[in-house]
Amino acid sequence: HCYPTMASYTREAYVTLCTNENYVAGAQVLAHSLKRSGTTRELVCLTTSSLPRYIRAKLQSSFDSMVDVDLIDTADKDALALLGRPELGVTATKIACWTLVQYSKCVFLDADTLVKRNVDELFQRPELSAAPDIGWPDCFNSGVFVYVPSMLTFKSLCDCLEKTGSFDGGDQGLLNEFFSSWSTLGAEHRLPFTYNMTANAAYGYAPAYERFRKNIKIVHFIGSTKPWHGVAAHNRVGENRVEQLNQDWHDMNNNFKTMSTDRYAPTYTPLPSDSNDVFDYRQSQN
Amino acid sequence: HCYPTMASYTREAYVTLCTNENYVAGAQVLAHSLKRSGTTRELVCLTTSSLPRYIRAKLQSSFDSMVDVDLIDTADKDALALLGRPELGVTATKIACWTLVQYSKCVFLDADTLVKRNVDELFQRPELSAAPDIGWPDCFNSGVFVYVPSMLTFKSLCDCLEKTGSFDGGDQGLLNEFFSSWSTLGAEHRLPFTYNMTANAAYGYAPAYERFRKNIKIVHFIGSTKPWHGVAAHNRVGENRVEQLNQDWHDMNNNFKTMSTDRYAPTYTPLPSDSNDVFDYRQSQN
Ligand SMILES: O=c1ccn([C@@H]2O[C@H](COP(=O)(O)OP(=O)(O)O)[C@@H](O)[C@H]2O)c(=O)[nH]1
Ligand SMILES: O=c1ccn([C@@H]2O[C@H](COP(=O)(O)OP(=O)(O)O)[C@@H](O)[C@H]2O)c(=O)[nH]1
Ligand SMILES: [Mn+2]
Ligand SMILES: [Mn+2]
Repeated sequence: HCYPTMASYTREAYVTLCTNENYVAGAQVLAHSLKRSGTTRELVCLTTSSLPRYIRAKLQSSFDSMVDVDLIDTADKDALALLGRPELGVTATKIACWTLVQYSKCVFLDADTLVKRNVDELFQRPELSAAPDIGWPDCFNSGVFVYVPSMLTFKSLCDCLEKTGSFDGGDQGLLNEFFSSWSTLGAEHRLPFTYNMTANAAYGYAPAYERFRKNIKIVHFIGSTKPWHGVAAHNRVGENRVEQLNQDWHDMNNNFKTMSTDRYAPTYTPLPSDSNDVFDYRQSQN
Repeated sequence: HCYPTMASYTREAYVTLCTNENYVAGAQVLAHSLKRSGTTRELVCLTTSSLPRYIRAKLQSSFDSMVDVDLIDTADKDALALLGRPELGVTATKIACWTLVQYSKCVFLDADTLVKRNVDELFQRPELSAAPDIGWPDCFNSGVFVYVPSMLTFKSLCDCLEKTGSFDGGDQGLLNEFFSSWSTLGAEHRLPFTYNMTANAAYGYAPAYERFRKNIKIVHFIGSTKPWHGVAAHNRVGENRVEQLNQDWHDMNNNFKTMSTDRYAPTYTPLPSDSNDVFDYRQSQN
């Protein structure tokens, strides 16, 4: 008899994507922030052959598993021009995360996200769970989402890309086309904005930011200028708030660098969280 | 015996607020757009003694009912400075709409909204129903909401204002404090963004705007510069989209002016809608 082991049902992972050198710093700091959060789940990085080998090797020490996937590019110049982000056609590669069927459930996180505290409770959410996008809030932002790996879903997503395409030329337009009923589903599918706090909200509605910032769990640095590109020249009211968020990213990056260059690296000290059963499976990695 | 008539259970109304001359044009065009939509519901305008008498008289012909209420001002300078809108303390007057207990259900609409098609289906929604705010989408935007008039709720809102206050100094911070569970309530409490499409979304996420603009039912001209202040000097990508929305407001305004100066004003021709039972109760007004 060949019974599947318990583990095959219960493996769960955080998944990110890194197709080129520009997102390596982000992926590393994201992984570090997840470890600091005291997560008990595995960390997976999807890569493509467009990522140089020596960079992939460098990234490997930050993740439990590196998975090579084929690059998918919408190549929809018109839609990407409307979005103002000509480089984002390759983010369609993100849908390859559905092929990770060795996991029963996953949380996808963009490489430009920063986890501020333990968010393992996300694995209790159903597919598809995500937070509203502040550009058009009947759409979800595809930088953070809970999903269930499935080859069937992957194939359906590929079909959708071929037949309908992505209305914004990137992964978000495609995923919102495919999961088009998201905004009318039950409340359990709607992640609080604090699980995907796009950094520009700090100046968009400052009173709400000040009121609810203590609840922020994941910060998402959307836009073409990322924290690792250096401090951007903001000319907006509230720039101090955005600068503080950028500083948070750099603090985590410095902490990561200190720990990875130290031959006798300390074991991770999880940040305070509600979770009591922190399983330090990755101490051996350090 | 004194049975209440059927009507006392079924009266429903659209309600707006106009405390000073700056919002008269908005209120008039909103009322006109509602009539053009072929609504079967009554139109109510809340006013305060701060509105000059001759202006109130002018507004009267646009509404079925004018209701004077006491001005409520948060006078919270710090919160309003953070919001960047020092003039909005008086919007707390909006909570007086709960005192309209002659109606069993109402839809509140800011004076800076424009109804593009029949939205009478909103009266099937429970209290409190509203659309997410694009500044912080766990909050609802308080420019459009469905509510049930009740003196008890009104008093509770007054208590909340006194004890907790408004985190943004205006009505939205107060209403979100009071209805703080909104974002986790059932999907029926969440109006699609197309029922409160804040005009800045047209440049915020242009691909989504182009994809979903055909569904837009109510446009909301948030911000200190309203369409009736003349065309604003926009320096943004996508300015044409915002200008087109401003033009829509001016088209409705021109249509309103033509009809109200014409001695033999035509009866309203409702815009195409899903509603078949259009009750032209206000033909006598024209
Ligand atoms: O050339 C690219 C562009 C994007 N990404 C991945 O796709 C995500 C989405 O892109 P981005 O975060 O820049 O989009 P935004 O959140 O700014 O819309 C990134 O975080 C990366 O994980 C990538 O690997 N290579
Ligand atoms: O001095 C004022 C300010 C506001 N309002 C009413 O309160 C609403 C909310 O204000 P506004 O629409 O300017 O706020 P925004 O939507 O720009 O945040 C207006 O539409 C009006 O109905 C009013 O009557 N007098
Ligand atoms: Mn991102
Ligand atoms: Mn308004």
